[in-house]
Amino acid sequence: VQDADADALGQQMHALARELFPICRSLTGDGVRETLSVLGKHLPLERHEVPSGTSAFDWIVPREWNVREAFIEDEPGHRIVDFKKHNLHLMGYSTPIDAWLSLAELQEHLYSLEDQPDAIPYVTSYYKERWGFCVTHRQRTTLKDGRYHVRIDSELRDGHLSYADFTVPGETPREVLVTTYVCHPSMANNELSGPVVATFLAKWVMAQTRRFTYRFVFVPETIGSIVYLNRNLAHLKHRMEVGFNLSCIGDERGYSYVASRYENTLADRIARHVLRSTHPEFVRYSFLERGSDERQYSAPGVDLPLVTLCRTKFGQYPEYHTSLDDLTLVTAEGLAGGYEFARRCLEVAEQNHTYRVKCLCEPQLGRRGLYSTVSTRDSWRETKSMTAMIAYADGSNDLLSIAERLGVPSWDLDPIARRLVDADLFAVVDSPMPASVLRV
Amino acid sequence: VQDADADALGQQMHALARELFPICRSLTGDGVRETLSVLGKHLPLERHEVPSGTSAFDWIVPREWNVREAFIEDEPGHRIVDFKKHNLHLMGYSTPIDAWLSLAELQEHLYSLEDQPDAIPYVTSYYKERWGFCVTHRQRTTLKDGRYHVRIDSELRDGHLSYADFTVPGETPREVLVTTYVCHPSMANNELSGPVVATFLAKWVMAQTRRFTYRFVFVPETIGSIVYLNRNLAHLKHRMEVGFNLSCIGDERGYSYVASRYENTLADRIARHVLRSTHPEFVRYSFLERGSDERQYSAPGVDLPLVTLCRTKFGQYPEYHTSLDDLTLVTAEGLAGGYEFARRCLEVAEQNHTYRVKCLCEPQLGRRGLYSTVSTRDSWRETKSMTAMIAYADGSNDLLSIAERLGVPSWDLDPIARRLVDADLFAVVDSPMPASVLRV
Amino acid sequence: VQDADADALGQQMHALARELFPICRSLTGDGVRETLSVLGKHLPLERHEVPSGTSAFDWIVPREWNVREAFIEDEPGHRIVDFKKHNLHLMGYSTPIDAWLSLAELQEHLYSLEDQPDAIPYVTSYYKERWGFCVTHRQRTTLKDGRYHVRIDSELRDGHLSYADFTVPGETPREVLVTTYVCHPSMANNELSGPVVATFLAKWVMAQTRRFTYRFVFVPETIGSIVYLNRNLAHLKHRMEVGFNLSCIGDERGYSYVASRYENTLADRIARHVLRSTHPEFVRYSFLERGSDERQYSAPGVDLPLVTLCRTKFGQYPEYHTSLDDLTLVTAEGLAGGYEFARRCLEVAEQNHTYRVKCLCEPQLGRRGLYSTVSTRDSWRETKSMTAMIAYADGSNDLLSIAERLGVPSWDLDPIARRLVDADLFAVVDSPMPASVLRV
Repeated sequence: VQDADADALGQQMHALARELFPICRSLTGDGVRETLSVLGKHLPLERHEVPSGTSAFDWIVPREWNVREAFIEDEPGHRIVDFKKHNLHLMGYSTPIDAWLSLAELQEHLYSLEDQPDAIPYVTSYYKERWGFCVTHRQRTTLKDGRYHVRIDSELRDGHLSYADFTVPGETPREVLVTTYVCHPSMANNELSGPVVATFLAKWVMAQTRRFTYRFVFVPETIGSIVYLNRNLAHLKHRMEVGFNLSCIGDERGYSYVASRYENTLADRIARHVLRSTHPEFVRYSFLERGSDERQYSAPGVDLPLVTLCRTKFGQYPEYHTSLDDLTLVTAEGLAGGYEFARRCLEVAEQNHTYRVKCLCEPQLGRRGLYSTVSTRDSWRETKSMTAMIAYADGSNDLLSIAERLGVPSWDLDPIARRLVDADLFAVVDSPMPASVLRV
Repeated sequence: VQDADADALGQQMHALARELFPICRSLTGDGVRETLSVLGKHLPLERHEVPSGTSAFDWIVPREWNVREAFIEDEPGHRIVDFKKHNLHLMGYSTPIDAWLSLAELQEHLYSLEDQPDAIPYVTSYYKERWGFCVTHRQRTTLKDGRYHVRIDSELRDGHLSYADFTVPGETPREVLVTTYVCHPSMANNELSGPVVATFLAKWVMAQTRRFTYRFVFVPETIGSIVYLNRNLAHLKHRMEVGFNLSCIGDERGYSYVASRYENTLADRIARHVLRSTHPEFVRYSFLERGSDERQYSAPGVDLPLVTLCRTKFGQYPEYHTSLDDLTLVTAEGLAGGYEFARRCLEVAEQNHTYRVKCLCEPQLGRRGLYSTVSTRDSWRETKSMTAMIAYADGSNDLLSIAERLGVPSWDLDPIARRLVDADLFAVVDSPMPASVLRV
Repeated sequence: VQDADADALGQQMHALARELFPICRSLTGDGVRETLSVLGKHLPLERHEVPSGTSAFDWIVPREWNVREAFIEDEPGHRIVDFKKHNLHLMGYSTPIDAWLSLAELQEHLYSLEDQPDAIPYVTSYYKERWGFCVTHRQRTTLKDGRYHVRIDSELRDGHLSYADFTVPGETPREVLVTTYVCHPSMANNELSGPVVATFLAKWVMAQTRRFTYRFVFVPETIGSIVYLNRNLAHLKHRMEVGFNLSCIGDERGYSYVASRYENTLADRIARHVLRSTHPEFVRYSFLERGSDERQYSAPGVDLPLVTLCRTKFGQYPEYHTSLDDLTLVTAEGLAGGYEFARRCLEVAEQNHTYRVKCLCEPQLGRRGLYSTVSTRDSWRETKSMTAMIAYADGSNDLLSIAERLGVPSWDLDPIARRLVDADLFAVVDSPMPASVLRV
């Protein structure tokens, strides 16, 4: 990717984020559908609607929630808090109300952050019925005694949980999965960065020659992934080579990933390799520090080879879960960096063949023109990489292992491996089973 | 254990130690029997007598040794060394003599420590016939030329080796073994601390609901354990889950343990976990630094999962194997600490189940009331421990592994595991084989 | 080996090196045959001649090269460069020529080292036909414009590749292989040190009682080993216990070895153990830094347990591949050190039995006289080693493992192991398969 291309791509992603930002997303409801419709202009999404009450492992799909309006007015009729202005003002899954309350009564339903007085916090109550408003602490301290008109015109009724997915067929039915979520209201890093990066990643995949079949999944967090796994686990256990969950991947700070349970899946190896090669100062979070949908994919018995890719991880930046997590925190440059991190991961997966040298003892490179005739520093490095690859191409090391052993990016070795295949010196001896099966 | 309880227990243990201290123990003889009789007032001991000449693996039970009196008198008839005053004065297994000797002749049979002039050394000659007296170096240097009357009225004849054991039945026939020895004359850390702590540990075990059957063994060191293993090896190989040898466990200095041959048995894991959690400054001795009955339990082909628990290990304190190893070195507080170390080890063994979460993906804790409704620092820590336990409850980790992974004591996790079992979220999936069988 | 013996041996090796030094060796040709004839005065070599054009795995035996004379003369007829003075002056495998050239034309065929102005470089062109002269840079800069008479009376024609081997039968057909090469012209460390040390090693082996059969191989590098493996691979895969390639083993600087592909063969373990015990400051080169015939023996599918033993490794000393690598760099002392390193490796292989103690629990050493009766520092160390060996003699550790565990040289443990075998306490339980088979 050229820098100019990266700039342009970043701008396009940021534009999509701006388009999606105002929509009121939640676990369920029309905001999710609208979000999927916007994404559907870019991708051939397949939409799914799962009825409330449907069981999925230990969980049940909740009722659907929609909001027409929600506000607080003071006695003179000034609308001092309005859902229309910022959808974080309303606690997610708030039940309806239309009443006049004293300030004391109202306070019981207000949420603010004393140590971040200008932030509206993000609060939900998915599985216990109640209502509430979220305000800046600065505003809350200005509220005077008196009566307040509180109105929430919301609806909590049997409906559906909405999600979308689609697959991009490749040369083999083995799958790479990319999942992200569409349940967060107006916040940017957590979580518009995930669906936005996933969208442009899918566009890139569609433009490539690819060995794997790619599956892109847009779901509400937790319940959405649980429903998705409930419906697709057997298939994924047979097909999935590797997977990545995208979350908090659009700010300009660090790079990180959240490991799987034992940090030993192909997804872990790829994420570590890419970050070691491109951002060696990255942060590696253990599964004890998990918090996104890796929780489901790496649960006991599910055991799919997936990790979560992040720039600054959820819970690790001060704007997290507040109105300060906005489109100044998430930038075109930040999104472009997150995109490149994820794209490299897919690229490494594609290139990660296992090779076996076809002759005993060293092959004679000279007569095949595989030794550079002009000796430069670069050609010397390439020859060194080539002979090292031949040395370890014994059918037990994939390209990633060899790259880690040599301390070079696997994408530097891939062209050399291809030359050796073309010269009939390397055979591809990939396992006939995807990583998800091998791990069980 | 409350501190007051610990104090009381320490006092009781020290009282028992004081009662046992004057008895002249050795590999065999009436002192061993008398010691077992005193312990038999506390525990339902089963007594065993093994005839001299009995083979046990590479060894033969030696003749029984008893002493009626032993002294040295100077020419004027002053009894300058008397076995009645301190039984360390007589070399263990000394043959009888009644003779007048010159000082030069006497010197050949005297043992003292030049660098510890006030200590009577502990010397034995179990397998070669000879006689000797042990004295302080200070006294030895005062001896004047002249003739000395030496009398040892001892008997070395075919008799028996005495030992005792008993089992406390538990819910399962799988066994935890505690072994210690009763062959050391008047010394306190090495070795009255072992039998005293073992006695009170047995009392505690008898008062508990327990999954394991417990076996307590009181034998003379080396030959006693070899005889014991010769008689019980097949049984222990089928039943023994874990075992602890107690020695030098009553002083107030550090904590330590002597590992098994490869440091990988359940006993090693438990001892390390308890010490890391309670006394992180503990000393870990490899099997190369062994010296007590772990030598037999961890010998090739025996391979039972046992380690030795110590406060300050044999050979590591200056009073070792001298009259200075007395009941001022071993204190009520020292014994209470040793007891608590050993008790924790048994507790961890009892709690060390392997669990498997019963649903796929994360269980919904909220609807089961397993999330604290009031959020405090403690409840947050408990929730974190609970979700971590669920994450790793995949049937491949026992409670110890999870505790080590989380860096918390396993006894903090046990109540959480029980709540998850009660909530029908955890199944117990323990191996049907005890650790001794699995290891083979 | 006594120091005086080492001195004498060093002198004998240096004398042999001096005898071999002037001969013009190459991949093929009469210089190789003459070298093998000189070595044949010391060893019962079996000579082999392999026709040009013979296939060996990915390679073909090249044509044979011989030189009658080669020189450059200036216009007045002064012979300014003469192959007779130093055979490095002629590029290896130079084609014939007899012509007058301008200085500019001549320059195209001259090789020198600007940063080592007094060194004649070592240059070859085995697989591409050309001609050239190698000169010191100092001489090159003195060349004046004018015409030069260049004459190379060489012959490149179908002939043979020459090599030699022989075996020294031992108690078992399992083999230890020592290989080195005879294709380098007048250089000393790389490579007369290898064949010289191998020759004296073979003499030592022939004088020993030996459990293994020894195979000594003298070949041209790369193509020679490839031919050798092509002819002997099946046999070696069945018989080879361990092997060592000798190269650059005669200077006085450090000690090092080049590891096999995964650094886990018996050869790796032996080389590391010997160097840790004798030269703890040694350098361990990974297979990524290989460059000698370990490249072939450790290639995928060949997988024989061999490492390369070096003093200062090829490419790691400034004189490498120049006329400065001469018999002042390689000394009697340097050769003696290299010999001793290699001899220790063979000795450790011979001693490396796996033992199993024959009784359960500790054996009683006292009644067998295996405890020293006089207690000295040395006897205490020996007793400690003996009990440690008994503890780990469980049939899963070879002598090397135990020595590494105890941190002592295995040759200190060997006599103790023999005493325990003699006392009927140890059984030898070696694997019935050689290391090369086990590794597959």
